[in-house]
This record gives sequence, structure tokens and C-alpha cells, in this order.
Amino acid sequence: MTPPLGRIMFRDLSPVTPGGFPARGVAGDPVPVAVTLVRDGHGLLAGRVRWRPIGATAWDVAPLADRMDGSGRWVGRFTPGAPGMYEFEIQAWWDRFATWRRDLRERAAAAQDLTVEFEVGARLIESMLDLVDPPARDRLGDAVSGLRSASCSEQVRLAVGLDDAVAGLLDGVPDPVETVASSRHRLRVDRERAVFGSWYELFPRSEGGFVPRARTWDRLEAVAAAGFDVLYLPPIHPIGVTHRKGPDNSLVAGPGDVGSPWAIGLAGTGAPAADGGLPVGAGGHDSLHPELGTLADFDRFVARAAELGVEVALDVAFQCSPDHPWAAEHPEWFTRLPDGTIRYAENPPKKYQDIYPINFWPDRDQDRVALWEACRGVFETWAERGVRIFRVDNPHTKPLAFWAWVIPELLERWPDLVLLAEAFTLPSMMHALAEVGFHQSYTYFTWRTSTWDLRSYGEELVGGPAAGWFRPNFWPNTPDILSGPLRDGTLAAFALRAVLAATLSPSWGVYSGFELGENAPASEDNEEYLHSEKYQLVERDWDRSDSLMPLLATLNRIRREHPSMQRIDSLRFLDVDGEDLLAYTHHVPAGTVVGGRVLGGDDTVICVVNLHPTEAREGIVHLDPAALGLPAGAPYRVLDELDGTTYTWGGSANYVRLDPAERPAHILAPSRSVRCFTTPAL
Amino acid sequence: MTPPLGRIMFRDLSPVTPGGFPARGVAGDPVPVAVTLVRDGHGLLAGRVRWRPIGATAWDVAPLADRMDGSGRWVGRFTPGAPGMYEFEIQAWWDRFATWRRDLRERAAAAQDLTVEFEVGARLIESMLDLVDPPARDRLGDAVSGLRSASCSEQVRLAVGLDDAVAGLLDGVPDPVETVASSRHRLRVDRERAVFGSWYELFPRSEGGFVPRARTWDRLEAVAAAGFDVLYLPPIHPIGVTHRKGPDNSLVAGPGDVGSPWAIGLAGTGAPAADGGLPVGAGGHDSLHPELGTLADFDRFVARAAELGVEVALDVAFQCSPDHPWAAEHPEWFTRLPDGTIRYAENPPKKYQDIYPINFWPDRDQDRVALWEACRGVFETWAERGVRIFRVDNPHTKPLAFWAWVIPELLERWPDLVLLAEAFTLPSMMHALAEVGFHQSYTYFTWRTSTWDLRSYGEELVGGPAAGWFRPNFWPNTPDILSGPLRDGTLAAFALRAVLAATLSPSWGVYSGFELGENAPASEDNEEYLHSEKYQLVERDWDRSDSLMPLLATLNRIRREHPSMQRIDSLRFLDVDGEDLLAYTHHVPAGTVVGGRVLGGDDTVICVVNLHPTEAREGIVHLDPAALGLPAGAPYRVLDELDGTTYTWGGSANYVRLDPAERPAHILAPSRSVRCFTTPAL
Repeated sequence: MTPPLGRIMFRDLSPVTPGGFPARGVAGDPVPVAVTLVRDGHGLLAGRVRWRPIGATAWDVAPLADRMDGSGRWVGRFTPGAPGMYEFEIQAWWDRFATWRRDLRERAAAAQDLTVEFEVGARLIESMLDLVDPPARDRLGDAVSGLRSASCSEQVRLAVGLDDAVAGLLDGVPDPVETVASSRHRLRVDRERAVFGSWYELFPRSEGGFVPRARTWDRLEAVAAAGFDVLYLPPIHPIGVTHRKGPDNSLVAGPGDVGSPWAIGLAGTGAPAADGGLPVGAGGHDSLHPELGTLADFDRFVARAAELGVEVALDVAFQCSPDHPWAAEHPEWFTRLPDGTIRYAENPPKKYQDIYPINFWPDRDQDRVALWEACRGVFETWAERGVRIFRVDNPHTKPLAFWAWVIPELLERWPDLVLLAEAFTLPSMMHALAEVGFHQSYTYFTWRTSTWDLRSYGEELVGGPAAGWFRPNFWPNTPDILSGPLRDGTLAAFALRAVLAATLSPSWGVYSGFELGENAPASEDNEEYLHSEKYQLVERDWDRSDSLMPLLATLNRIRREHPSMQRIDSLRFLDVDGEDLLAYTHHVPAGTVVGGRVLGGDDTVICVVNLHPTEAREGIVHLDPAALGLPAGAPYRVLDELDGTTYTWGGSANYVRLDPAERPAHILAPSRSVRCFTTPAL
Repeated sequence: MTPPLGRIMFRDLSPVTPGGFPARGVAGDPVPVAVTLVRDGHGLLAGRVRWRPIGATAWDVAPLADRMDGSGRWVGRFTPGAPGMYEFEIQAWWDRFATWRRDLRERAAAAQDLTVEFEVGARLIESMLDLVDPPARDRLGDAVSGLRSASCSEQVRLAVGLDDAVAGLLDGVPDPVETVASSRHRLRVDRERAVFGSWYELFPRSEGGFVPRARTWDRLEAVAAAGFDVLYLPPIHPIGVTHRKGPDNSLVAGPGDVGSPWAIGLAGTGAPAADGGLPVGAGGHDSLHPELGTLADFDRFVARAAELGVEVALDVAFQCSPDHPWAAEHPEWFTRLPDGTIRYAENPPKKYQDIYPINFWPDRDQDRVALWEACRGVFETWAERGVRIFRVDNPHTKPLAFWAWVIPELLERWPDLVLLAEAFTLPSMMHALAEVGFHQSYTYFTWRTSTWDLRSYGEELVGGPAAGWFRPNFWPNTPDILSGPLRDGTLAAFALRAVLAATLSPSWGVYSGFELGENAPASEDNEEYLHSEKYQLVERDWDRSDSLMPLLATLNRIRREHPSMQRIDSLRFLDVDGEDLLAYTHHVPAGTVVGGRVLGGDDTVICVVNLHPTEAREGIVHLDPAALGLPAGAPYRVLDELDGTTYTWGGSANYVRLDPAERPAHILAPSRSVRCFTTPAL
């Protein structure tokens, strides 16, 4: 009869996810571990966490400490170094020696006879001699002798029993008789880009594709110069011709119309690439649109981006134009109608005749396996070319089961992969996609415009039920979404939304044209752009003097210089007396480890944003100086990182006035955490 | 390659416990079930819960309904009838027919060609013909023909497709291709006494034991007359003589001193019982103290109690006097010192020489098994005599693993067993004991005296993290605890604590002497009674005219008449303007099922208690009439169930004044929910 529990019960262990998927960490960030230890009786407990990469044999260990607040909660942390899958478990034990020692002190204070207790202690130490290294063993052997030397005075033997050095040798040594292990849990460690990065999206076909003009790619250089980390490209594959959409999503394309890049696939005999690679002329998700250049051009583009510190992210959209090779070769991967045709995409009564959705659950299981492996192959094709970041189109219309299978498969081969979920849907689905494996997700930021909206959403992201694994990426706009104050909005509206996205979320991004304030909506009914770039090439005057690109560059610089802005969990909101003003801080104290770097001092940023795009607003911002490491009783200087202005703040209430004509926001760094005094950017 | 998830992901399923132990229900109470269903795409889902007693083959099913609030949350309920262990799971599926029908309506409205859709629908219905009974099958067959009759007009075929009767036949029928089952969960259904009951504790030796005086047991009759459900007796076993405690916990007992009933066990050759049962003269946990009577007397006592509607509850205290037979027969079940003696109980520097604690983890596993089985045998011995309720002494000093093993073992044989945990320790342990199997627990009520204390604790019990399985039993006093306002307190203080316990918690109890206001503490240092009944017999004048027994009887009557007071989850607190006034309500609407009974009307109780034991207090009580089923705009009458007074209340604020000299509290029933107008009791 085996007991259904060990000697210690482990309750509310974290980090875990509710569905039992791996918890998430970031390479070089400490992973906080907590567990409630419950054991009968009054003995002292001890605990530790042990962890290792999956597949390794040796464990690393880190201590757990009792929080000593009556909760029975023990906390600790460990810091995995490299991306990959790890496992960890808690070990806890009744610390018989520490308990004996505590009781010995009490007995001695009560002048009780200690003779038998000395022998109890000696036997306890003896039972643990084999668990320590030889020098410690010798020292403990001496203690055993001391406890047993009947010729010594009780006082001497007591001193041996209470000796801190002896206790120190046994501290943290798991007692094999008493040690119980929790169930084992998995932790997936991602690279930093999974949680922190600045994204820029552009349609390469509007910029000449991957063929360099005069040995360079102007736009790539500009994006890199503005401090963006990721350049995300909509699908770069051949585009179908059947039911190709014309400009402004019209149903009939003219002869020169380029079609939507998301209508992926064009059958035919593509010519082999010049470099002997994949055929580029035609094909599906594994092929490159011939007008964008050759695969060799693409590789050179990716390589140049890397030189500039920019990663190229590709779009993975599992759907096919009617001309996709899969439609002919694998009709069983699609939904077939009784008349033998394939059902095109629709959301009745809406129809999307240029796209066939994939049926991820074909009738026969072998078809499903082949399909899922083919989809995995799409990621593999591009990962083998060096791409490590993918933006996944509409993942919520593909099975969670597929993602729960394919993402770990891919990460096992490329642990540095990062997948962004383009899911704008119910929170339950967005959280589920994150839990089963996506590294980060688009969010509702685009539609959160009021102070209440933004604060409640921010607080949910920091402390809500999915905070442990749902990592946000804030986009003020996308090719699909021109919304809120941006519609017909002023440049000031664009500036304030950029500041919000870049300072609220460690990951943010914009779709090109944003910096030029492109603001013309297609209609009242939807959030599309007029003359959307999804259906046509767009030419832009990048050199416009009022471009917001310098602001975006400044924001990216500030984000890089302030580690506190690089993780969502430092975000806290401030109360403000004053309409339309949103205030929040990022703060991490000296000694915090972020991405393997130890902070030499506090890092603190105080943001105040005027949410009204055209009118000035003023108010009183309340803060707790102690919580931010600021002097409570004395004034201090704060630098506005946006424009280099300095202000004197003090106490717990400070006046702020923001006029959109001058600046959308303050991004204030107290002098002690200021890293950089650059020139004004606005 | 099997997908790691089904086609639907089940998130946040309830009821479950965090450690995977069975969730808890009450026989005849509906069990609310909730789950978040997450599936890709835009299809309509359907779900149900299915459940059965463990060991049964057939399932019962109950529907789940989408809460339709964007949360993806589906809810339902099922009502198990008898105590025992059940299992349940959620089944959910993409409802292909309902989705097709919804889309058909949209397509028709958009005047799209429906020809192929009719065939799609016909095939869908055909695929489900085998899942319905023959009449339905015929009706569905007709629908298939109708959809296919090319000779009919589109309008006629559309009507067939949209026919509510056809949809009704397929509604709730799980589609075998699409149906996914959640993991299976266990639910333990307890009888009502696990959550609702009035307890009275007395030392039988102070009342002549189980030997009836003049064919009756006076005190038992009185307890029954006062409406108590459970008569709980401290240990009734032989008491050791070694280191027996004298009066007031003195270290040396005189010749006539009776000793503590918790110093269990006296070795020797007990004479066989007159009825041929177990020896009563001496023995351990399986034996009866000879001075209490014979086992036959005990049986008659238990039987008479049952006639009176009272259940006898015994104390199970797993510890032994040095004279317990186990100490001699099984020294391996105890902690032995190097000198060969058994370590007595201590909490250094305190010593309890009259007790040996049991070591539940002996070195050899076969010893552990024998010990655990012997402990199980203690419950079995008394359960075989008809005892079904046990108060377990200090369960937190025995392994959780032991309880997690023994409680299911016992419940499998006696599903109507109820175990009360006497654990006054850290919340983590109290919650763990409840989770692994205890039916109910003593609480911190005894030490909660202020309005904030009581409200926050009550709210934690109703809505805190352990609310699903931690069931409170509120005791104003116990033989170990004379605390708070009771110490040297007035009778009014006792009255107010009784009202609080009886009206805040569905389970409550008092230790005898409470009704007489016994209030003399042993010392400043602890919460013991002076001349504690634990160490000596106590004679009481039960007929004192100021006895609170009539109040306790009134409280018990009110509790029985108001189903809303019989479950903790109806408790809500009210805001009060006014010091020391605690106000709360119990409310369940008409139609609620409680213990298998359907309420014909609303049941509502409004309690207002003055927490000051000697001074009058007044204030304004705020309530939301709509939340309590009360008229919002008109006055209504409320009856004070304590004394029959009626008042006129109205609106959302009402004035209350309570003078301890007159009454400790109002227990107000709005006229529409009044069940009984008895004579005043105070």
C-alpha cells in the first residue's frame, strides 16, 4: 500500500500553466519559483529547486527560502542561460538536524537533561556523513565525537550541538530519508526577442523587393537606423491569379494588378533559381515570388539586415490560392463540396474566393499527418535559410492541437525561434494560443484608447490570469487596421499612439506609412485603409520633413537604454487627477538581472501621456517615491528622454501639462537612472 | 503522430481541486459545472457534462450552455442523489449541423445559390441518423429527402433546412467525428451533515456515562430538545495512569483523579463485556472506558440519540498513553530514543509525559502499513457500531498522506461518514486537510471578534481559494479554548457569539457549559478554562433560569427553517454605517434546490449583530433590495425570528439599534420568506 502523497504536500507550485504546457522564461532572466510546503507537525522544513535542460543528466540546484509570513510559501529562483526546454522540480524535506538543534536550544534554556539528546544529534549527523564532501565529513565526524564525549562538560557538548559551522555544513543537504520531490514541470526558455523588440512592417514589393539598388536596400538601412530590431514582411510567395483581388479589394483584378500576398501559391513550372536553390517562378509557401528577386537576393537581404542588427521576420499564412500546388496535389487537405469542388474561404454571407482554407482534420488520419508535416515544412524551409522569426497569420483559425504539436517540434531544432500570433479574437483563444506555444501575440491595444481602457488592459497583461505566458506586442496600426484616433487623424495622434505602444509594451511595432501619418480609411464600415497596400503597390515620400521616423528612433533608443522597459512585469500605473492623462512607470531596482545583465543601479522611467490628440491637458500625477527608489523628502531632477528637457519633481504629487502641439508625452528618467542625454528628437 | 490536444481545448474546468483530489458536492445539491471551450474557427459549439457513480457503467448527461458573454465559458449542472464517489467529464463538439443551418440562413438572406448547400446538409443529417431513436430517424430521413428533392422549389427545401423541429432532433446529439472529451474528474458527494449541522459537545463522564438514570439520559434529551443534530463526545476510551494529569493540568494525579480522556489506553486484561463484545476493562482506541458503562450501554445510548434525531460523534485522537497496549506491542510505531525508551510528546521546552505521539513513518515500510491499517481499524471499530461522525484530534500532526489514504478507504465502505478536522494551524495546512479528504474543519472564528475580522473571514470562506472544499464549523468555545469576549465575559457576550456562529456558518457547535456562561480562565497565558473538565468531572446546574439553552434552541430552529442558512455560499455581507455592527444576509431564490428539496419561494434572512457585549450600538444598514428579492420601492415587514418582533423596513438603508441588555442581534425574515412564527426565545 503506497501512500497517495509524499511526506510533504506541494501546493500552488509556480511557474506552471493551467493546461500543463511548459511555463515560460527568458534566457538570462531569473525564473521565480514558489511553492507552498505543507507537512504535519512542528518540524523545520527545508527546500530547494533543481533544474536542468531536457536531456541533460546533471541537475543545477538553487535554494528555496521560507517567506516566513505564515503562508507556508517558499520562494527561490534559478537563471537558465540559453534558450531551450528545461525541467525543474522542488525538493523539500523535514530538516531533522535543524529541528533537533532548535529544540536543543529550547531544552537547554529550560535546564532539561540533555544526555540523550546529544546522542540523538550524534546519530543524526552520522546518518548524513556520506552526503557531504570529505573535509565537511571530517568536521562533522569531530562534532559527533564532541557530542558523545561523556568526559566533556554538558556546556561543551551543547556548544558542539549549537555550533553554527556544523549547522552550516548540513544546511541545504537533502536528507535522503525525508526528502520528497514535487512532480516535474517543464520550462521553455526563449531568447529575449520573444518578449522585447521593436518591429517594423513593410511590403517588400513596394520597395523593390530583395534586389538591391546601388548595392544597398534603402528602406532596410532606414529601418535599422531607427533602431528597429525586426523587419516583418507580409508573405513573399507567388500569388494566385484565380479570383485575384484588384485595388481596394475589388473582385476583379486588372492585368497589371499585383494581388494580395496572402492569396498564396501559383502552380506551374517555375524556373530553377540561378543559385540552384528552390524554383522561384511558381510554387507555394516554399517559394519566393519571382518579382521580388531570387532566393540569393533574399539571402543577401537577410544577411545585410543581420549586419545592421535587424532580423527579418516572415509571414506564415496557412491558406492557399486556388492556384497553389497543394490544391491540385492534395485536394484531401481542403474541404470538398458534394460537387467535387473545393470550398473557398467564407464567413457567410462573406466570400473570399481567392483563398482556399486548409482543413486541418482530413477524414483519414494519414492525410492529417502528411498535411501537418507539410505545414511544419514551411517553417523549416525558411528556418533553414536563417529566418528565426515568424508572424503567423490567423492562428486562431487553425487547430490549437496543430500549434501544440508543431511549435515544440520546431523549437527542438531551433530553440531561438520566435512566433508572433496574429490573433485578434476572444481572450480565451488568445490565451490558449500563447499557452500552447506562441511566443507573443498581437493585442487589443489598437482599440484601447481611453485612460481606463489602457490602464485596465495594461494591468491585465501584468497581473491577469495569463500574465505568466501571454506576451503582448502592441501595434498602433497594421495593414488591416486603421483605427481609433488614427482614422483621419493628425500626426500628433500618430505620435501619441506610438509613444503609448513603445512605452507600455516591451514588444511593439508599426506598419510602414505610420510615420507619415497615413490616415485615410477605406470606409465607415471597416478598419481598412483606402487604397490598401494589400492589393496594390504604394509609393511613399520617405523624406518628408514631418516624418515621425525620428520620434520612433528616439523611442527605440529609450527602450534599449532602459532595461525596466524591456519586461512587462515592471509596468505600474499611477493615479492622475486630470482628464485624459495616462501615467505609468517602469522600475527595476539595482541588482536586478535582466537578460543576464546585472543592473548596477535602479532603472526608473515615468511616463505621462496626453490621450487627447489635439487639446492640451493638465493634471496632478501621484506616485509613491519609495516604490520607485526616489527621495521621499527632497526634490529630484527628471530628464524628459523625448526632448532632453529637465524638470524638478518631488514628493508624491507633481503637476504636468501636455500640449500635443509641443509634445505628446513625458518619458521622464530621474537623474540617478539616466543613461543617455541625446539630442531632442521631436 | 497523435496530436497533443483534441479538436477542442478545455480550460479552467470546474469543479476541481488544485491538487487533483475529488471535488466536493452534497447529496441532492446541484453541482455547478463550468468550462471554457476553445476551438479554432467560427463554427458553433455544443457541450454537455456526463457523470456517473464510480463503478457504474451508464452515464447520466446534462446540457452545457454558452454563457454568451464573450468569455467562451459554458455552464451547466447535475444533481447526484446519494453520497459516494462520482466521476464526470465534459464532452464538446463542433456542431456541424447547427453551423450549417446558421450559414444557410445567411446565404439565403444574401440570395446566394443554395443547391450545393442542400446536399451538404442532407449528408450531414445522414451521418447522424444512427445516433437518434427510430421515430427521430424517420423524421430526419424525411428532411434528407426534402433537401434533395430537386423537384421542389428552393423555398421549400430551405424551409426543410431551417425547420426548428429538425434542428431540435439533432440538438445535443454529440457528433462522433467531432466530439472531444475532457479529462475525467472525480466528485465526492457527501451527505448534508458534512456541511450543515448543529453540534453539542459534552464529557459523558460528567453526566453519568452511558448508563441511563431512570431509563433515560437527561442531558441527551435536553440536547435533542434544543435542536442539536450532533452530540460530540471526547474520547471514551480507557485512560492511562502513567504520568496521569491531575486537576488543572497538574503533573501529579491523586488517587481519585480521572485523567485526561486524550491520554488514551490502559493495558491489562480487561474483563469481557457482559454482552460478549470487546473487553471494556482495559485497552486502547477500540475499547470503552469501564466507568462509562458497557458497550451495550453505549449502543443503547447511540440508539436513543438516533430516535431523538441526534447523532453521536466520537473523537479520534491518534496518540497513546504510555499504558496503551500499542506501546508494548508495537514500540516500532513510536519514536524511540537511543536509550530504548519511547519519546513522549513535547513541543520543547513543553513536555506532555502522559502521551506518546505515534510515528506515522516507521523505518520499515511493513511497520508503516501495519500502523496505518491499525489506525484505520479504529474508525472501523466504531463505524461498525453505527457511529458515522468523527471529530479528529490534531489531524495536522499526522501525515496528509495518511489522511489522503484512510479517508477514501473509509468512505468507500461508509459513504455517509463525516470527519471534522480539529486543526487550528496555518491556512495552508487547514486547506490541505480539507482537500485531501476531511469533510469539515474547525476555524479561526473563535479569534475573530471585530467587524472587519468577521467580514473578511466570512468572505474568504465564501469566495476564497479553498471555498470549493473547505467547509467551516464555527465554535464559540471548546474545552481547549475560552477566548475573546467570553473570558470573564457576560452572558450577553456568550449570546452574541452564539448568534454569530449559528448564523454565519451552516455548521456550528458549542461545548457544554457555554449556555451557562462558564467564563473563568485558567491563566493569562493560555486559553484554558479554570478547573478544566479535561482533567476533572464538572457538575453543572442545568436548570439555571438564565441558561442560554433556549436561545441556542431558537437559533437551531431558525437554521432548520431557513434553507438559505444551510449552505455557506449564500452568505453576503452588508455595509453598515455604525461602529461594532456586523450585518449579513442569506438569500436563495425560489426554485433553488437544496438537499433535494425545491424551494417554493425565496428564502431570505438578514442578520445584524452588535459585537459590543455590553454597550448599545446603532447604525444604518445598507442593502440592495433587488439582490434579496425585496420590493425596491415599497416598505415591507420583517420578523425578528429571535423574539417575534416585527419591523417595517424599506429602501436600501434602514436604521438599527441593538442593546445587549435586550437582544444581541436581529435575525430578520422578510414576511414573504417567513416560515414560522414561534414564541420568543430570548
